[in-house]
Amino acid sequence: MVINSAAIRWHGDFLELLDQRVLPAETLWLPIHNSQQAAQAIRDMVVRGAPAIGITAAYGLALEAALQGETASADNLAAAITVLAASRPTAVNLFWALERLQATAGTLQGVELVNALKKDAEAIHHEDIAANHALGEHGAALLPEGATVYTHCNTGALATGGHGTALGIIRTAWAQKRLNSVYAGETRPWLQGSRLTSWELANDGIPVTLVADSTAGQLMAQGKVQAVIVGADRITANGDTANKIGTYNLAVLAKHHGIPFIVAAPVSTLDPALPDGSHIVIEERDGNEVRQVQGKVVAPSEVSVYNPAFDVTPGELITAIVTERGVIQAPNTDKVLAHIREQ
Amino acid sequence: MVINSAAIRWHGDFLELLDQRVLPAETLWLPIHNSQQAAQAIRDMVVRGAPAIGITAAYGLALEAALQGETASADNLAAAITVLAASRPTAVNLFWALERLQATAGTLQGVELVNALKKDAEAIHHEDIAANHALGEHGAALLPEGATVYTHCNTGALATGGHGTALGIIRTAWAQKRLNSVYAGETRPWLQGSRLTSWELANDGIPVTLVADSTAGQLMAQGKVQAVIVGADRITANGDTANKIGTYNLAVLAKHHGIPFIVAAPVSTLDPALPDGSHIVIEERDGNEVRQVQGKVVAPSEVSVYNPAFDVTPGELITAIVTERGVIQAPNTDKVLAHIREQ
Repeated sequence: MVINSAAIRWHGDFLELLDQRVLPAETLWLPIHNSQQAAQAIRDMVVRGAPAIGITAAYGLALEAALQGETASADNLAAAITVLAASRPTAVNLFWALERLQATAGTLQGVELVNALKKDAEAIHHEDIAANHALGEHGAALLPEGATVYTHCNTGALATGGHGTALGIIRTAWAQKRLNSVYAGETRPWLQGSRLTSWELANDGIPVTLVADSTAGQLMAQGKVQAVIVGADRITANGDTANKIGTYNLAVLAKHHGIPFIVAAPVSTLDPALPDGSHIVIEERDGNEVRQVQGKVVAPSEVSVYNPAFDVTPGELITAIVTERGVIQAPNTDKVLAHIREQ
Repeated sequence: MVINSAAIRWHGDFLELLDQRVLPAETLWLPIHNSQQAAQAIRDMVVRGAPAIGITAAYGLALEAALQGETASADNLAAAITVLAASRPTAVNLFWALERLQATAGTLQGVELVNALKKDAEAIHHEDIAANHALGEHGAALLPEGATVYTHCNTGALATGGHGTALGIIRTAWAQKRLNSVYAGETRPWLQGSRLTSWELANDGIPVTLVADSTAGQLMAQGKVQAVIVGADRITANGDTANKIGTYNLAVLAKHHGIPFIVAAPVSTLDPALPDGSHIVIEERDGNEVRQVQGKVVAPSEVSVYNPAFDVTPGELITAIVTERGVIQAPNTDKVLAHIREQ
């Protein structure tokens, strides 16, 4: 089966990833033939966004099984799973997808196993797109008529199987004519907002204004923002949410201004195994992402840098978590666990 | 008289400005011979920082008077004053310096006027350095022993006559061994933190860690920051403070975490003529400052951008304003006006 989405093209026997490091200047597709290449692409952020990482890992494992052919087995895939699982630590979708494929593999062998993994990876991809559309509907209903929203990082078709999480809500709200416009924070250091979100929204004809991340408070104080909508990389049982660095700043600012703060993510992002955000491993990335901008040096080369890729927003600061199953208002442990149980 | 400071060299008959647009990659001094060149340098941010802008405008007007020579008079300088006053709208020090030189000019003519203006511009320069050292002492006393502080933008020797405002406090506290280290926000879009503050502090041997602006909340939540110290471009009668975009975010975050939020500025930054921050004109700069980073394109060229250079922090969020005269705790209109009156 061939599945084409904005940043992930599955050809049945190999994968192509849109290189998000060079967007929007260049449109470059990188071929992926095995689990090592998939892990490298995740680590280097060729592909990024928690759902897209999960889908890529699933395809990477299926490709590895296909290379093993007759010898494919759960045991023989263990090394590939280890490499894929080590590619990035924070987004839970990666581990969720690998665990799901492991369960699918079970005691299957050879071609039967290969076909089962390919089918499951494709199902994960399809389900993610469907989940995005469903959560888009649930989330759009939360927005006041004619709202202008603020979003951070990129949570669109590039970050998911397609449509998007926070951008899925934005797309659906725009289609429903509930949305006025969007402020996109540029999202230093990797500039997902400048490079990806403003490009995606402009391509869809949705009015977007790009701002430096520091502008968010002033916009809220001026009454220009009616809701903040972000994605998530991992949501613990109590609703604490790891997401792109800067999300926590926005949550505190939204609270100060009495503006709804909405987190959009598929159920696969919920991690009931962790009671709260203090247990989430936060990835620290190379300081050169801050010292340089797309290769341009902007700081002394020897200056010390702290570059956490994510921060944790306490559940208390979150107005609502939106998944494909519906809305968790004022999340807490009881509500999040109940939401996971209801199938 | 020759006065050399970090970014402003006065030679008595011309001025040199360190081009802060290309730091730290290049050390380039631009000669300034008249008021037009001074205004251009302020507008293009060759020189920036409220006190340094005031000093540059003063020298620019003195140079213009010198060019007029025998014909120099307050009337003949009116056009130059208009051009200088129009160079940037937000920092009050510019207008304060020009008004001070106008008062000095009075009814003087010719060489007598030229000499009076040069002397006054030099006095402004010297007084600013002295004010920085005095406020450094007052501010350092506010910091807990062994504090790690967070600062924004550049408020150092490059932004002032020398020593600095917020960085003046940091320098004095470091000399007094009261300071542990500094987090410098990179300060998008112009990257004053990356390019100037980290460079200045590293040159002084003060431990500095550079972070993306979005990291501030996470650092505070982790208990890594004991105070936030920033400069100011204009402080209204009630303590509302215009400063580099992102300052307001930091003030809200500091309040949420119960961390002192300190504003450092010379008395010349206080503007008793404006009752509150709603009256401050906020400069909006070219969107390419956000779409590009030091000439490197990072966003679609046609994307709409909102790029205010400053925001306004309400006086209620400010723990203390520190000037060369002392400390205004929990500023309000009575306290700020009393502080201005006490000479």
